[in-house]
Amino acid sequence: MEMRKGNLMSVRTDIKVLDATIRDGGLCNNFEFSDEFVKELYKANIKSGVDYMEFGYRASKNLFNPDDFGKWKFCDEADIRAIVGEENVSDMKIAVMADVGRCDFKTDFLPKNESVVDMIRVACYIHQIPAAIEMIEYFHTLGYETTCNIMAISQASSEQIEDALDMLGQSSVDVIYLVDSYGSLYPENAAKLAKKYLEYGEKYDKAIGFHAHNNQNLAFANTIETMSYGVSYLDATASGMGRGAGNCAMELLLGFLKNPKYNLYSILTFLQDYMLPLKESGVVWGYDVQYLLTGQLNRHPREAMAFTAEKRTDYRNFYVGLLDND
Amino acid sequence: MEMRKGNLMSVRTDIKVLDATIRDGGLCNNFEFSDEFVKELYKANIKSGVDYMEFGYRASKNLFNPDDFGKWKFCDEADIRAIVGEENVSDMKIAVMADVGRCDFKTDFLPKNESVVDMIRVACYIHQIPAAIEMIEYFHTLGYETTCNIMAISQASSEQIEDALDMLGQSSVDVIYLVDSYGSLYPENAAKLAKKYLEYGEKYDKAIGFHAHNNQNLAFANTIETMSYGVSYLDATASGMGRGAGNCAMELLLGFLKNPKYNLYSILTFLQDYMLPLKESGVVWGYDVQYLLTGQLNRHPREAMAFTAEKRTDYRNFYVGLLDND
Repeated sequence: MEMRKGNLMSVRTDIKVLDATIRDGGLCNNFEFSDEFVKELYKANIKSGVDYMEFGYRASKNLFNPDDFGKWKFCDEADIRAIVGEENVSDMKIAVMADVGRCDFKTDFLPKNESVVDMIRVACYIHQIPAAIEMIEYFHTLGYETTCNIMAISQASSEQIEDALDMLGQSSVDVIYLVDSYGSLYPENAAKLAKKYLEYGEKYDKAIGFHAHNNQNLAFANTIETMSYGVSYLDATASGMGRGAGNCAMELLLGFLKNPKYNLYSILTFLQDYMLPLKESGVVWGYDVQYLLTGQLNRHPREAMAFTAEKRTDYRNFYVGLLDND
Repeated sequence: MEMRKGNLMSVRTDIKVLDATIRDGGLCNNFEFSDEFVKELYKANIKSGVDYMEFGYRASKNLFNPDDFGKWKFCDEADIRAIVGEENVSDMKIAVMADVGRCDFKTDFLPKNESVVDMIRVACYIHQIPAAIEMIEYFHTLGYETTCNIMAISQASSEQIEDALDMLGQSSVDVIYLVDSYGSLYPENAAKLAKKYLEYGEKYDKAIGFHAHNNQNLAFANTIETMSYGVSYLDATASGMGRGAGNCAMELLLGFLKNPKYNLYSILTFLQDYMLPLKESGVVWGYDVQYLLTGQLNRHPREAMAFTAEKRTDYRNFYVGLLDND
């Protein structure tokens, strides 16, 4: 255990909890959250001690027609201000996500001192690192905190990962995220990968984050396992709401963390008042057999999402189909 | 990682998978499974490579009125034979559970050579170890394989655990089980406890098992984490069916294990044909916020089970009530 940072009793003041409910959960309901929902989540997060709240994507309106999506796919400054006020006076910081190749980063971002946004999270696949770094440097000059969230890491080679970490290490990025998009990592290899990220993080003075998916019911386990070795930015969502099998549940994470700044009361109230009705309204996410299978096979969950949307339950046929397509 | 036994690619031929669906799942439906259900599960387990199938409890008919329960609370020899035939000709072994203080062990067990049962699992709390050992020695003379499943281990002291392991080490028991009855262990402390069990297991030549509960969505994670350090008897249930938040799901475990003797096809068919209809019929189990809370607080799930039975969703009140009762 000697390589772990702290133990199950210790407070790690370097930990930052980021709520990604509106952003990753938005992938389940086309970003169509009511303002009341977002405002109550904002308040619940503040009271729970959450450090960052991600409001959604700032996607290109040239690529995506705003009529086809809820507003949190675009996160207009005015829409965020309608939730947090003209100034976000809380201690909780505000994040938005910008996908490489899916945003107009040169035109759609104000300088930080004119914005309520604090952090921009740049999401990319590993071959897009140069494009991500261009965006990161630009956002840095605007004055924002930045992260780079390298997605689908379970399909990248060790060499690619090392090259990417080295390039990001030399950039202005603040946080490098390990993202288990396919929910295919086990605690043992998640920890191994995290140690590699942490090695570069130490070398270049970057914090490391972890973003989990729950395909194999391991989102929480992988989050606390990577954390135990030094990962400090931890993504979670209310009820684990997120694409496909969803993410690490905020209620699991906050109940685990020992820092008394975190507490469960407000998030529990939010779950009963807002998350349960959302589920009852027919929005679907969470662990299920079809996601387990794509996770085990280290594959994009798109086939499992289609299986879910069609309300199929023929798991065996689905599995045979996946293997035939392998 | 040097203390781990094998890695994520290796086959561990010492692994034994035990299906506890009828026994732990029986706690969710009063043991009222149809013969068809049990027979199909038996066949699916054999085809999936499962090593042991637990058919239920052999509880005292003096203590419990057979009219009040399904037959798998009692596991009469004739009822098991109705499923497996006069002789269980498969490679899969058959287990039943006997609770200390809740069975008539001197009268209700045939000698092994007159029974289709192979293994008797003796379940006890840590203060009942002497009584458990008396039963184990008796079952040993009858010719059975035996395990001792020490329940609620998260509330025992290190000293108690060491004393218990030392006593069991000197007994005839074959397997000593670490049982996370409250689903309160994290991978980090589950691994620590497992290492202690393994230390005594090595000293006394006993195999070590793990039985997980899923209160914090960690049943699978804790199972594979403890396994990685040398635990070899692994309990799982179809769809994770088991008391309260349920257990480690068989489909997660079989998909993880690298030994080609294990496969997913038959269990997937069983899930779609039998487990989904069972859930739809109104039998309730599985991870939910109320179980997370009792798990985090290291408490018996009884209050969470009552909350579930009453179909309550006022998580916050429930949590306040738990804390007031602490």
